[in-house]
Amino acid sequence: MSNDQLQTLLTQTPEDGYALAVKLAQKGVEVTQPSEEIRKLLRPVYSRDTDSLIAASQVIAIHFQTIAAANNYWRTWTPQYY
Amino acid sequence: MSNDQLQTLLTQTPEDGYALAVKLAQKGVEVTQPSEEIRKLLRPVYSRDTDSLIAASQVIAIHFQTIAAANNYWRTWTPQYY
Amino acid sequence: MSNDQLQTLLTQTPEDGYALAVKLAQKGVEVTQPSEEIRKLLRPVYSRDTDSLIAASQVIAIHFQTIAAANNYWRTWTPQYY
Amino acid sequence: MSNDQLQTLLTQTPEDGYALAVKLAQKGVEVTQPSEEIRKLLRPVYSRDTDSLIAASQVIAIHFQTIAAANNYWRTWTPQYY
Amino acid sequence: MSNDQLQTLLTQTPEDGYALAVKLAQKGVEVTQPSEEIRKLLRPVYSRDTDSLIAASQVIAIHFQTIAAANNYWRTWTPQYY
Amino acid sequence: MSNDQLQTLLTQTPEDGYALAVKLAQKGVEVTQPSEEIRKLLRPVYSRDTDSLIAASQVIAIHFQTIAAANNYWRTWTPQYY
Repeated sequence: MSNDQLQTLLTQTPEDGYALAVKLAQKGVEVTQPSEEIRKLLRPVYSRDTDSLIAASQVIAIHFQTIAAANNYWRTWTPQYY
Repeated sequence: MSNDQLQTLLTQTPEDGYALAVKLAQKGVEVTQPSEEIRKLLRPVYSRDTDSLIAASQVIAIHFQTIAAANNYWRTWTPQYY
Repeated sequence: MSNDQLQTLLTQTPEDGYALAVKLAQKGVEVTQPSEEIRKLLRPVYSRDTDSLIAASQVIAIHFQTIAAANNYWRTWTPQYY
Repeated sequence: MSNDQLQTLLTQTPEDGYALAVKLAQKGVEVTQPSEEIRKLLRPVYSRDTDSLIAASQVIAIHFQTIAAANNYWRTWTPQYY
Repeated sequence: MSNDQLQTLLTQTPEDGYALAVKLAQKGVEVTQPSEEIRKLLRPVYSRDTDSLIAASQVIAIHFQTIAAANNYWRTWTPQYY
Repeated sequence: MSNDQLQTLLTQTPEDGYALAVKLAQKGVEVTQPSEEIRKLLRPVYSRDTDSLIAASQVIAIHFQTIAAANNYWRTWTPQYY
């Protein structure tokens, strides 16, 4: 993500939206710890620690909520009863 | 979920929506730790740790919130006073 | 909850909505640790641990937020200024 | 809260809404640990532990978000630009 | 905040809204630990602990979300495409 | 951020919105620990601690959710099915 500017929150599919949520979660770590070298040292640790994995999944979940709303939940129709 | 693409957030029932929320929470762990082998080693640990179980339940709750909104809360009618 | 299918998020009262939020929070623990035996072993531990109790209360709060929105906050009137 | 049924999320003022949020957060602890005796034992501990205090404040914040939305943020006018 | 009643969530600017979010987060600590004496003892500890500082920042973030919504995000115009 | 007043939540792009979210998260730490000296001492610690990095990323995620909503998700069109 380092070199990418975040241009839009719109994605074609929920799958792409989820991938974007993962990137936004990683970006939050990158801005706090800009050194790629240090992040590489930390990665083997947290990717084997259960609580860190669940915590990372939670950050993704929050971003996915934002992205899903941005995409109007990828609905292609409006529910009749809306 | 590894082989499934996330195509839609729409489900027939809240029960199915909850099941999807569980999958999205697991997916967040999978993208951070892609090795199925390592995840299998971690599983017996966190599934017996109270704090990990509650944390996992929280990630599910956040995704369920997103999915419920996507499905307009599975309402089949609009409240009169809306 | 094990035997119940989640049919609807609609409840008659906020009190019933809160009870449903509690069930959804428990369901998240159950899907991660399906063994009722192991959950029974864990229960005396976490129900005497302050941080676990607060964490459990937080998961309930997130689900209650979803359920309250689903029920349009159990409003029976629309505020004039809406 | 033990004896009170939660009848409505509507309150006269934000202050009352905050008080209700506190009650809902406590209620989440009560349903997980129904024994008042045990809760009384835990209270002196967590009320002197910084992380527990902040965690409790967070649960209140989530409920306050729900209650504020339910009350349409206690607005008495609609912003012109809405 | 102890002596102030929370009268409104409306503020003139985002800056004022952020200040209110800080107060609401503190209020959550105060209701759980009403003794100002004990809170003063805890303060030097948590204000030098990284995890506590981030956790406090998170509670502020949740309240700011509520207050921003209450103020319709301090928008003075409606986006054309709304 | 110390010298900046928060004037608006509106930004030109999602990238700028993310940068603002980072600032709001830092601001929450600053109000709780106003001493820049102490914060500088803490920084090397938490920026090498995995759990702190993920927690910081989560606070950013919550603020980004608020800012994204404020900017109507930077949409330049309304989905047909809205």
